[in-house]
Amino acid sequence: MAIRLGDNQYGKAEVRLMRVTRDGDRHTIKDLNVTSQLRGDFDAVHVAGDNTNCLATDTQKNTVYLLARTHRITSIEDFALLLARHFVTGFDYVRGSRQEIEEYGWSRIRTADGPHDHSFVRDGAEVRTTVVTREGDHEWVVSGLRDLVVLKSTGSEFRGFPKTPHTTLPDADDRVLATSLTARWRYTGTDVDWNAGYTAIRATILETFATTYSLALQQTLYTIGRTVLETRPEVAEIRLSAPNKHHFAVDLTPFGEDNPNEVFYAADRPYGLIEATVYRDDAPDAGRAWESVPGFV
Amino acid sequence: MAIRLGDNQYGKAEVRLMRVTRDGDRHTIKDLNVTSQLRGDFDAVHVAGDNTNCLATDTQKNTVYLLARTHRITSIEDFALLLARHFVTGFDYVRGSRQEIEEYGWSRIRTADGPHDHSFVRDGAEVRTTVVTREGDHEWVVSGLRDLVVLKSTGSEFRGFPKTPHTTLPDADDRVLATSLTARWRYTGTDVDWNAGYTAIRATILETFATTYSLALQQTLYTIGRTVLETRPEVAEIRLSAPNKHHFAVDLTPFGEDNPNEVFYAADRPYGLIEATVYRDDAPDAGRAWESVPGFV
Amino acid sequence: MAIRLGDNQYGKAEVRLMRVTRDGDRHTIKDLNVTSQLRGDFDAVHVAGDNTNCLATDTQKNTVYLLARTHRITSIEDFALLLARHFVTGFDYVRGSRQEIEEYGWSRIRTADGPHDHSFVRDGAEVRTTVVTREGDHEWVVSGLRDLVVLKSTGSEFRGFPKTPHTTLPDADDRVLATSLTARWRYTGTDVDWNAGYTAIRATILETFATTYSLALQQTLYTIGRTVLETRPEVAEIRLSAPNKHHFAVDLTPFGEDNPNEVFYAADRPYGLIEATVYRDDAPDAGRAWESVPGFV
Amino acid sequence: MAIRLGDNQYGKAEVRLMRVTRDGDRHTIKDLNVTSQLRGDFDAVHVAGDNTNCLATDTQKNTVYLLARTHRITSIEDFALLLARHFVTGFDYVRGSRQEIEEYGWSRIRTADGPHDHSFVRDGAEVRTTVVTREGDHEWVVSGLRDLVVLKSTGSEFRGFPKTPHTTLPDADDRVLATSLTARWRYTGTDVDWNAGYTAIRATILETFATTYSLALQQTLYTIGRTVLETRPEVAEIRLSAPNKHHFAVDLTPFGEDNPNEVFYAADRPYGLIEATVYRDDAPDAGRAWESVPGFV
Repeated sequence: MAIRLGDNQYGKAEVRLMRVTRDGDRHTIKDLNVTSQLRGDFDAVHVAGDNTNCLATDTQKNTVYLLARTHRITSIEDFALLLARHFVTGFDYVRGSRQEIEEYGWSRIRTADGPHDHSFVRDGAEVRTTVVTREGDHEWVVSGLRDLVVLKSTGSEFRGFPKTPHTTLPDADDRVLATSLTARWRYTGTDVDWNAGYTAIRATILETFATTYSLALQQTLYTIGRTVLETRPEVAEIRLSAPNKHHFAVDLTPFGEDNPNEVFYAADRPYGLIEATVYRDDAPDAGRAWESVPGFV
Repeated sequence: MAIRLGDNQYGKAEVRLMRVTRDGDRHTIKDLNVTSQLRGDFDAVHVAGDNTNCLATDTQKNTVYLLARTHRITSIEDFALLLARHFVTGFDYVRGSRQEIEEYGWSRIRTADGPHDHSFVRDGAEVRTTVVTREGDHEWVVSGLRDLVVLKSTGSEFRGFPKTPHTTLPDADDRVLATSLTARWRYTGTDVDWNAGYTAIRATILETFATTYSLALQQTLYTIGRTVLETRPEVAEIRLSAPNKHHFAVDLTPFGEDNPNEVFYAADRPYGLIEATVYRDDAPDAGRAWESVPGFV
Repeated sequence: MAIRLGDNQYGKAEVRLMRVTRDGDRHTIKDLNVTSQLRGDFDAVHVAGDNTNCLATDTQKNTVYLLARTHRITSIEDFALLLARHFVTGFDYVRGSRQEIEEYGWSRIRTADGPHDHSFVRDGAEVRTTVVTREGDHEWVVSGLRDLVVLKSTGSEFRGFPKTPHTTLPDADDRVLATSLTARWRYTGTDVDWNAGYTAIRATILETFATTYSLALQQTLYTIGRTVLETRPEVAEIRLSAPNKHHFAVDLTPFGEDNPNEVFYAADRPYGLIEATVYRDDAPDAGRAWESVPGFV
Repeated sequence: MAIRLGDNQYGKAEVRLMRVTRDGDRHTIKDLNVTSQLRGDFDAVHVAGDNTNCLATDTQKNTVYLLARTHRITSIEDFALLLARHFVTGFDYVRGSRQEIEEYGWSRIRTADGPHDHSFVRDGAEVRTTVVTREGDHEWVVSGLRDLVVLKSTGSEFRGFPKTPHTTLPDADDRVLATSLTARWRYTGTDVDWNAGYTAIRATILETFATTYSLALQQTLYTIGRTVLETRPEVAEIRLSAPNKHHFAVDLTPFGEDNPNEVFYAADRPYGLIEATVYRDDAPDAGRAWESVPGFV
């Protein structure tokens, strides 16, 4: 028997980067949160504290800022690929890299003279995400979004589930369905129009959620996933994680009032948690794409 | 010398209420967080544990849900006034009440057939707020917003400040100015079009932030406050609290690159914190309006 | 009618300071979060963007770190007073200052050789606090703690409260009582043994909570406040804010089981919120001590 | 090509359970957060909205509370195994289950009469965790802790790392080393004294962190992992994730002061993030143990 070092990675997490692009008076901004991780020949630093191959996390941070200066960031996927390639091809002891980027949305402030050139207001809590994994010459891109909070005030039921000795929930013909969606989709390759993909997938998620009569949150999630795959050939698979943010109709009968699904208590915990993968059966292998993505299953 | 009970209040905090109004197939939703507090003859419960006058916080919660059923919630101000009046006029041992309500915004999901009738997506982190205080027959309304995150990528400088032995900050001719604004304004009375007021004030805040060349965040805040008061006669005073969310231009000279205000590090802490009141000198007295509003000064 | 600048303050918030004191091999650490605010002649910066008197928040931050080097921090109260005096006596345009400090606790790691000289583990979420306000020559110190989470699994009832048409809560002979306590006490002066005061008051709070049979959370709070004032003559008044963190006994009768107060659901929201002041009637005037303390009433 | 449902799971998340055990007057409490997830024959609910096999998440919640009544919870591992076995052996369409439990620590309040029988104070932010996975007849237990915040004020260096064109960090002979540790260890089986294991491993982590002179955080983590495996034969592997919570010595030379590692700025972001696995090479296969554990690599 021996004790051994297994998988490991290290890097700089949450490098907060605001990139301003000045096209004359009209500025555009990119607000990113970059986490850079390296994998490779790092046994010596773990076992012996020998830092010869330990490219400092501070150096990784510097690189993020420098490449943000020397390159135009067209999408978080392109920037993450740029960073991964920089580290893996630049240092022989770096064999792989994981680059995760979150993007926060901003809109121009609308003034009497129209959208402002250099003044912005933050959009909602929703975040665009990507995790790029490179291992040797292989590259995988898993993009997504999180904290997309949606609600249907009707058009949702939940009936016909098993009535066991531990069941007290009655069938519901009409209920509020609300969730804060996390979606992550793996692209089939890296020759993709990342921004067009993101915009289309986000729109599909919203439209499908809105227009699907829901028999169960599982069915809603699967329908979203299937629709994304049907319309976006560049997507190999999609994983959806959805807390069922319960809204309970308040019982007003003690006060002599009915409640025709108008007054709800929005509960915090516990919440249902529904998670599913939908994939295309001819998709290329996932490789290490999902290994370090906060996931499920 | 004697030890005495001083000011006190109690109630139910963060009653999460989702109110769905069904006008045929087209629903509208109000997503609120209500905190109800009572003041009055409560010495006995404190000193002797005598609950004779202790209207249970659970009862206050029930009342929130019941009044949400029996009344249409046109604005958080109207609903908070309704609650305050209910408690103060309904129980002789209740002399005053503080009702705080937060409102979270939702928009209809846009589908191929237009905005959806009953499917919604949460707006940003921004929150609309009100604190209604009633004491006997007096009523005060302090409304506002929080977590309105705005940024100017230019049009901001900070120069000419004192250079003391502890000063290392250089003058800045051009900097990023970003903040997460909290604004609270006291209305002169209660005969107000609350929603029109809110919409106009919010728009004024955004427009003024966008179009004011900033010499200091203090000047920006004061200009916002003054413009609100100049345009909204129903506002007696406004208090603004603004963290200066620093964005530091990264020094890229060690790597042979300049940085013409394009690459910034968005810092978390510490942050500047600027707070100011702007008021109209003929406004009615503030009374107890501000006493329990999370504030400053 | 005229529009005017009212109360205002500004400074650097959340300056995170770790102070290591090296007494030979044995180190002690102070982990602080300092928020420095100034008040004074700041009309020009607000109205005209004239920064002549605007001592930069960055300079305030430098001062915090510098004074942490040149002075030994014996208590957060002493350090806050040092900072307030530095700013108010050092700059004629600074008329007042508010210095808020939070302290996070650490304990030595226990090893086979005893408590370690320079390795520490963070204590709980509980935070020690102080807010020092100086206005001209007047000084006020309000110290306290927050996030002290306590629970009684019995020894608490809630009965005899008004049964109104909106009441559904039954009397409870035996319940779980839990809260996350925030306490803030105003000292009568500044000639105080701050650490002895803190230690004694914290112990009194815990002991009184533990040993008081509770008829209502209000009574528990008042008893805590009264006991602190009876035992600590240096305390002028104390304000307590306590969320009633409800633990509901789960109804297991649908499954054929009773529940003799053994299985509880710990709810998040809504929660009761009980707040009270206890004071000594011969205490010196509070002045501006409480004005900017997150408070109530 | 076809679009298919892939891996999926669902259940009730964050069921907050407080279990009071009354041994006469002396109570003990268990404060848990249970997330129950099921896997199995759930194609119909996803594809067709057919809930025939969809054991409601509400039913899972009821089961958690009921089993907490009918069984004594000796450890979170035992309780998670009980729940997993209940669901997988009780319903033929349930093929697997994931049960995650967090435990929050409480201590008795010390009074003049000693530790109190039924009054408690919450311990720190640290959380004990377990994830039990059952798939058919196979069971895996991954236990751990998170938010264990530790710091060394000396006894740490970081030198000899690669000096690349993007490197600006100098070698450090003496630095503060601080982290908020997450550790997860997989047990070799289920015939384990869970509480003894947890207590011993936690003590080993603390002692090793304290007494290891650190050449790199990687080396510290590996040493912790190796020591745990050397001393605990019931542990197959351990995964450690450690943010390097940077404490930067403040440069006081502009003010004429040196700083012999006494005054530090505790930074928030970015932070280093170091993650490593240590395993015993004769350990049983990990199976699905790690698949849904928030992880890395």
